[in-house]
Amino acid sequence: MTSVPRLDLASLRDAPLDPLTKGLPFDAPPLTVGDVGKQGWNVLAGDLPLPLAVIREDVLRANSAWMRDFTAANDLVIAPHGKTTMSPALFDLQVADGAWGITVATVQQLQVCLKFGVKRVIIANQPIGRQAIDACFRALQQPGFELYCLADGPDGVAMLAEGGKRNPPPSDNPLRVLVEIGFLGGRTGARTREIAMEVARAVVAADGLALGGFECFEGLLPTPQAADGLIDDVAALAQLALAENLFAAGQPVVVSAGGTAFFDRVGERFNATNFSRPVVKVLRSGCYLTHDSISYAAAYERIISETTLNLPEGRLEAALEVWAYVQSRPEDGRLIVTMGKRDISFDAGMPVPLRWYRPGRMTKPESVPEGHRIVALNDQHGHMEMPETSPLRPGDMVAFGIGHPCTTFDKWQMLLLVDENYRVTEALKTFF
Amino acid sequence: MTSVPRLDLASLRDAPLDPLTKGLPFDAPPLTVGDVGKQGWNVLAGDLPLPLAVIREDVLRANSAWMRDFTAANDLVIAPHGKTTMSPALFDLQVADGAWGITVATVQQLQVCLKFGVKRVIIANQPIGRQAIDACFRALQQPGFELYCLADGPDGVAMLAEGGKRNPPPSDNPLRVLVEIGFLGGRTGARTREIAMEVARAVVAADGLALGGFECFEGLLPTPQAADGLIDDVAALAQLALAENLFAAGQPVVVSAGGTAFFDRVGERFNATNFSRPVVKVLRSGCYLTHDSISYAAAYERIISETTLNLPEGRLEAALEVWAYVQSRPEDGRLIVTMGKRDISFDAGMPVPLRWYRPGRMTKPESVPEGHRIVALNDQHGHMEMPETSPLRPGDMVAFGIGHPCTTFDKWQMLLLVDENYRVTEALKTFF
Repeated sequence: MTSVPRLDLASLRDAPLDPLTKGLPFDAPPLTVGDVGKQGWNVLAGDLPLPLAVIREDVLRANSAWMRDFTAANDLVIAPHGKTTMSPALFDLQVADGAWGITVATVQQLQVCLKFGVKRVIIANQPIGRQAIDACFRALQQPGFELYCLADGPDGVAMLAEGGKRNPPPSDNPLRVLVEIGFLGGRTGARTREIAMEVARAVVAADGLALGGFECFEGLLPTPQAADGLIDDVAALAQLALAENLFAAGQPVVVSAGGTAFFDRVGERFNATNFSRPVVKVLRSGCYLTHDSISYAAAYERIISETTLNLPEGRLEAALEVWAYVQSRPEDGRLIVTMGKRDISFDAGMPVPLRWYRPGRMTKPESVPEGHRIVALNDQHGHMEMPETSPLRPGDMVAFGIGHPCTTFDKWQMLLLVDENYRVTEALKTFF
Repeated sequence: MTSVPRLDLASLRDAPLDPLTKGLPFDAPPLTVGDVGKQGWNVLAGDLPLPLAVIREDVLRANSAWMRDFTAANDLVIAPHGKTTMSPALFDLQVADGAWGITVATVQQLQVCLKFGVKRVIIANQPIGRQAIDACFRALQQPGFELYCLADGPDGVAMLAEGGKRNPPPSDNPLRVLVEIGFLGGRTGARTREIAMEVARAVVAADGLALGGFECFEGLLPTPQAADGLIDDVAALAQLALAENLFAAGQPVVVSAGGTAFFDRVGERFNATNFSRPVVKVLRSGCYLTHDSISYAAAYERIISETTLNLPEGRLEAALEVWAYVQSRPEDGRLIVTMGKRDISFDAGMPVPLRWYRPGRMTKPESVPEGHRIVALNDQHGHMEMPETSPLRPGDMVAFGIGHPCTTFDKWQMLLLVDENYRVTEALKTFF
């Protein structure tokens, strides 16, 4: 399976960073994104204000390589969900590690991919509204660019077809539609096979559209078993459409599913299906890249203990940390840290204190002792309970692990890659 | 009470907007922030992609004027919390309406104020870390700029004092410290009067620092009665410090408190105190400016029904809305909309559907009928329950009211001011 070409990041590297960007030193000279890694800044030396979101580069690269090896070993490809990071430099790392494409959630996110040269994008949504639909068709005019999007009902297909009439795409580059399969009480997605097939036939009948395949997002389901049922539906519908000869000759047939919680089930169920024609089995996991310290960490333990798929060397580890200062120790058993809802995820568990460091007094960060936990976040403060014996005091630095990378990334216009000594190696600009 | 001079927004207006900014049309020409209001865009005409965060300009201006009149009628001033919006154009509106200063939460937010010419800032926190403390002292070198910050313990004062030694401020422009009063189980703030007075004396003894006054943040307390107790502590400590002659002659004595939920109690309790010297009674409310449709809406109803303060003409109304499309109606009783955790607050109640509009078919938005409610948000989707009789279908636009403006503002690098017909009048750039 050919991967998409590397991205063109020159314009990103050369872009000036607004000196007001959260995370930059307050006395920094005017800098481009590409300059940041050359400053010799070190988090532990106090060269940067806190809070600060950092990604441990060695862990990040190992995670990316792990997923490359995992998909290659199991006849899968990955179009990682770019909405997680919205960082073109990270998209480029994923592409370098063989990503089949990049997935996005919105047309604004598609524009980011186009700007930096991603050549195959899945919009894992039905585009809605004239602005969004017209932008999808305009993108198809770019030589060598392929676009997939979703539809889950005849209304949606009709809106796409009208967009195709307004903006006819090249005959060899239609808008590829993946029919979304859903479940009762779930999010988008056809609730029955009959509706799904009706959508597929409507796509085939519309000018400017082509049936790309079938997909689901299983990540909202509570158990691997429930995910299996939905993934099996996707495979079954692809077979029905193949039997009905709905796919154009010579075009890839895609089956795809979504999250980072059950990606083993996606591979197992798709691989258990005997498709009548070669299909491209596309994972869309996004959170594996930085992994996390809470929910995906737990999901991954289940995966590696249960799966019958081939597991490569190594393992996913948490790469993303937010550092904050202890601001106050106002009463026994309570600390306040300089980090709040605007700096770190709080929708999938409270941040987890990992390591601490006393500037000028310690040679390297040490593990936070047992018994420290964040119990509440305000906009710009974190409330921590801890034992009276806690060594932490105002001015100490604390590194927090996060749950749900998506909602930490989107709180930072710039995150910093760091080496194992917390020296800054690169700035990652995001586009939320 | 002199207000601070208007801001210098020329550099902001002339700044180019990144074409990838969420909310901009995908086919827009290169634009500056100041260009946006000249494009003639209309939300209802589909000129802009959704989701989109808009602020109704007439409501916003009326809210700002209401607070101007309210504070003037009650011997109060306001240093509105700028962390809510982080929009210099809105800071300027607040200054034009007589704001005594702008409050911020972090030193990055202080940098934004400095850049655009705010002349008096309260950092409603203890600055921590060399980067942050040095930046505070550097700011004091700017002619005509005054800076207040908080401290709640001797450790914190010592860190500020060391900063003052590294960066001695002009003798007539010290770093003004407000001693923070807290409560057991609360956030920052001295837990006893003894500690508070110890902090005040340490400030007075330190070179480069001056005692500015006392303050609290009462917004986390559950009831107006609990807030009263904390506010009374602030007033009592100011009187103790006055009796002990801790304030420098000729310097203002500040008492201040914080949120938008109990600002009536702040005014009532401070006004009930006979201070031995004139004091500046500073509210720091931030959310009044756009108000909201959930928690602050309820808090405001209590205020206007209970307060003994003078209430001016008019009233606060919700000005901030996020618009989204109906993306899918996949089953009876459930809609999915194109708006999620990355677009709207979800930490103080789920978004409230207010109005809907069918492009090309309706002349103006209509109220959403009873029975529609958002029951869950994912990163980029909203799940809505509604009656089977709901008129909404894919492609319709829906306006949502929000709770807690701070956590909606911070999801947008650009919000749009609109007139009563949803024509875009101005872009508001934010700095989160």
